[in-house]
Amino acid sequence: MPPLGAGWIRHTVAFVLAHPEGSAAEVDFLTAARRLTAIPGVEAFELLREVSPKNPYRFGISMEFADRDAYTAYNEHPDHVRFVQERWLAEVSEFLEVDYAVMR
Amino acid sequence: MPPLGAGWIRHTVAFVLAHPEGSAAEVDFLTAARRLTAIPGVEAFELLREVSPKNPYRFGISMEFADRDAYTAYNEHPDHVRFVQERWLAEVSEFLEVDYAVMR
Repeated sequence: MPPLGAGWIRHTVAFVLAHPEGSAAEVDFLTAARRLTAIPGVEAFELLREVSPKNPYRFGISMEFADRDAYTAYNEHPDHVRFVQERWLAEVSEFLEVDYAVMR
Repeated sequence: MPPLGAGWIRHTVAFVLAHPEGSAAEVDFLTAARRLTAIPGVEAFELLREVSPKNPYRFGISMEFADRDAYTAYNEHPDHVRFVQERWLAEVSEFLEVDYAVMR
């Protein structure tokens, strides 16, 4: 990994789906989520399983941006906005966003 | 990054300190937290600033383990146990652990 710039940010979200575990609907949602990696500015995209028994979440998405502008552009990108409106709001029952930056 | 083994795990914790922001006590805690990187099995250690306004946390620690045994050994290591007992329980006011594994 190259040295991180001052504006580097890692955007993560831990979440639970409304779908039954192992269902086709779950697979379909996760497939759609993976496509977020194609949005410009997204780096180090990861779709992960959440495995701690100390929280209610069961999946996670992690991605990195070179700076705050790239993060904002992702948030406002039509493909992201559409994913949130058409999939996330309807299929995610609980989530928490956690964003990390370099320590000053 | 080499391909991740099936047992790979990323252990993260987002937290808030009881200390005032920018205080010497805060710096001292973070300095002690950094020393966790020396515990055997800890990989990709990161001490981060949490910057999302959507949660109450202000710092984060992220580390990776090759497998569950390495994670367990870290948890049980005397230096980790001592850190939790002597620093974490006394100085952290709120936290959330989130652990990620590869998607099966």
